[in-house]
Amino acid sequence: MPDSEQVVHINGHSSLFSVALQEKQNSMTKKLPSDSVINLDHGDPKMFEPYWQKMGDKCTVVISGWQSLSYFSDITNLCWFLEPELVEEIRRLHHLVANAEIEGHYIVVGTGSTQLFQAALYALSSPDSAEPINVVSAVPYYSSYQAVTDFLRSGLYRWAGDAYKYKGDQPYIELVTSPNNPDGFIREAVINGSGGKLIHDLAYYWPHYTPITTPADHDLMLFTVSKCTGHAGSRIGWALVKDKEVAKKMTKFIELNTIGVSKDSQLRAAKILKAVSDSCRQDYDNFFDYGRGLMAKRWERLRSVIGRNGLFSLPEYPMEFCNFFGELTEAHPAFAWLKSEEEESKDTESFLRAHKILTRSGKHFGVDTTYLRISMLDREETFDLLLQRLSNMSSKGRENGA
Amino acid sequence: MPDSEQVVHINGHSSLFSVALQEKQNSMTKKLPSDSVINLDHGDPKMFEPYWQKMGDKCTVVISGWQSLSYFSDITNLCWFLEPELVEEIRRLHHLVANAEIEGHYIVVGTGSTQLFQAALYALSSPDSAEPINVVSAVPYYSSYQAVTDFLRSGLYRWAGDAYKYKGDQPYIELVTSPNNPDGFIREAVINGSGGKLIHDLAYYWPHYTPITTPADHDLMLFTVSKCTGHAGSRIGWALVKDKEVAKKMTKFIELNTIGVSKDSQLRAAKILKAVSDSCRQDYDNFFDYGRGLMAKRWERLRSVIGRNGLFSLPEYPMEFCNFFGELTEAHPAFAWLKSEEEESKDTESFLRAHKILTRSGKHFGVDTTYLRISMLDREETFDLLLQRLSNMSSKGRENGA
Repeated sequence: MPDSEQVVHINGHSSLFSVALQEKQNSMTKKLPSDSVINLDHGDPKMFEPYWQKMGDKCTVVISGWQSLSYFSDITNLCWFLEPELVEEIRRLHHLVANAEIEGHYIVVGTGSTQLFQAALYALSSPDSAEPINVVSAVPYYSSYQAVTDFLRSGLYRWAGDAYKYKGDQPYIELVTSPNNPDGFIREAVINGSGGKLIHDLAYYWPHYTPITTPADHDLMLFTVSKCTGHAGSRIGWALVKDKEVAKKMTKFIELNTIGVSKDSQLRAAKILKAVSDSCRQDYDNFFDYGRGLMAKRWERLRSVIGRNGLFSLPEYPMEFCNFFGELTEAHPAFAWLKSEEEESKDTESFLRAHKILTRSGKHFGVDTTYLRISMLDREETFDLLLQRLSNMSSKGRENGA
Repeated sequence: MPDSEQVVHINGHSSLFSVALQEKQNSMTKKLPSDSVINLDHGDPKMFEPYWQKMGDKCTVVISGWQSLSYFSDITNLCWFLEPELVEEIRRLHHLVANAEIEGHYIVVGTGSTQLFQAALYALSSPDSAEPINVVSAVPYYSSYQAVTDFLRSGLYRWAGDAYKYKGDQPYIELVTSPNNPDGFIREAVINGSGGKLIHDLAYYWPHYTPITTPADHDLMLFTVSKCTGHAGSRIGWALVKDKEVAKKMTKFIELNTIGVSKDSQLRAAKILKAVSDSCRQDYDNFFDYGRGLMAKRWERLRSVIGRNGLFSLPEYPMEFCNFFGELTEAHPAFAWLKSEEEESKDTESFLRAHKILTRSGKHFGVDTTYLRISMLDREETFDLLLQRLSNMSSKGRENGA
């Protein structure tokens, strides 16, 4: 398997670049050859493409050459590079979906939620502190948090690992990802310290992934267009921030880091979010209904295959009443979090790689290699190939493949 | 003057947000009232707006809802989030203008050149070094370098001030801005050390600002759409990088910082750069010809007013043969670098603020308050108001105003 050598692990998880190289042979062909390496290591949200194709011109954005020349979007807004149209559509969508309390929060736009996460670390840490503030998250935690926190060796903040193991009376920042990446469970903060500050990463708290049981109302909440609508290429995220000074400091971070956020992508994101909100008012083409249907079908098929091959187990999610759909629903997370059921063989990532399926090992999420994460968001034919290969696996196949 | 209290100095220079607030009264009206505060503190490049309006639909970008969903642009490229159309137009424009040697360089795209500057610091520093590498630039240096280098208190690099004063045999990074911001002069590195690494910021090395005498051919060169075409709101810059490993590390920085760069803005930038290149092939509407004409006229008017009021002096630039225009030309920098000619009164920024002109004091550029920088890139009516006010000033007026 020549491609496996191209996986370079930098900063604790596969480099997106290296991973991308491996997809080359897939994307160069229109139809996936049956022996393709399939890359489900990262959560590239291509599954919504057919929906947006169907929407046609409704979501086309047109930007004239003379528009948006200035650095500034709205000088009356604390976040001076935030486009008013985007504010309006973010507010409208949260009101409609009721997944987050927007009143009493400032909106800060970012170049994806990754930049906003760093802006939040900057805003919640103190420049006068002798020691960097500890940044923790409960295992299994999102694999990029550690690398993103530590890559510049900041004197303001540092990664301190698993929140369950955090001891000490120093101030800390706890990251709460809910639904959690990688395992899809709804989460709350796990530390009961008095000096703690919380960042809630709610990238997946949308009705196609999980039941919306209550509007989240935390001090600092992160959202991203990438996982909500699938427009990862636009690099637009937003934070809802209660404290004015924190919102100001986050804005300052983005000023120093990138002098604002692409106006073109903000205008496009506004148009896309508007289309999503408009679709929620209709009986047909409801985006979240479409997305939930797609995810539910994929999960049903995955559970059936996993149940038959007996090599892995999957998390079970409770049925809960989703206020958005007005009915009991189950979570259909963006990632499948597999656990090997066999004791003798521990490295599930290598095992699946031998079957030309690239996944992300549990070790990048603070747990062990019996776990692994598989993206559920790729194109249909890639998902079909995943299921085919999982179907053909067995305990016997495992011995041969590993 | 109530507005002056809103100027908050953070990290050594005016906060863009605070500065923006002061512009509010200006932009709320179509026509600038004659007593408006005019904000020439930052270089918001609005002067090219009429050119792009005239271009009409030629530069309009249209992006469908289903386009550019993926994080990836071109998985065969080292910089995997770089759009192929943008590569083509960057190459074509540099070939046409002959301001930079593009062969033998990798292109890395960034969210403006500010992000690329940080990517370069990350790429040129060593994670294994016990001490952060020193980052220096010759005075007067761009006012944001210090804040951007130091705001995260990185253990990889730290600001070490004026390159002329740099002593020591430790490795260092020297920033060479040419033409220089704030003073418009062509520059070379000033330190002759063996352990030095260079970043060349060539944001203003375009024919509307300065004679193009030779294609720059340095290890690491930064360019930005903002100053080339005026599209600051798109936040697109690019680096030309000789060393493959440096280009890879810069790409890694941008992956960790923002998981790539807005595809929408890259596509738009490609269209805009294409329009610029196309215009260079024509006898009419040549963008750089238009830009140079505008800048030359502004500089001529400014020199005339400054010469009459006797309070300030301006740098003089040599006539040089511009290969692009095929004739002797003079520099017409994006900023005017004023020096007070009066000994008794030192704080020129405060003096001009009393005349409702916001500028940036020399102290932010590593020199003293007798110097100040004024943006030459604002809209025509703002520039007219600047000249009116400078015209009405005199030694007598200065005593009254300050």
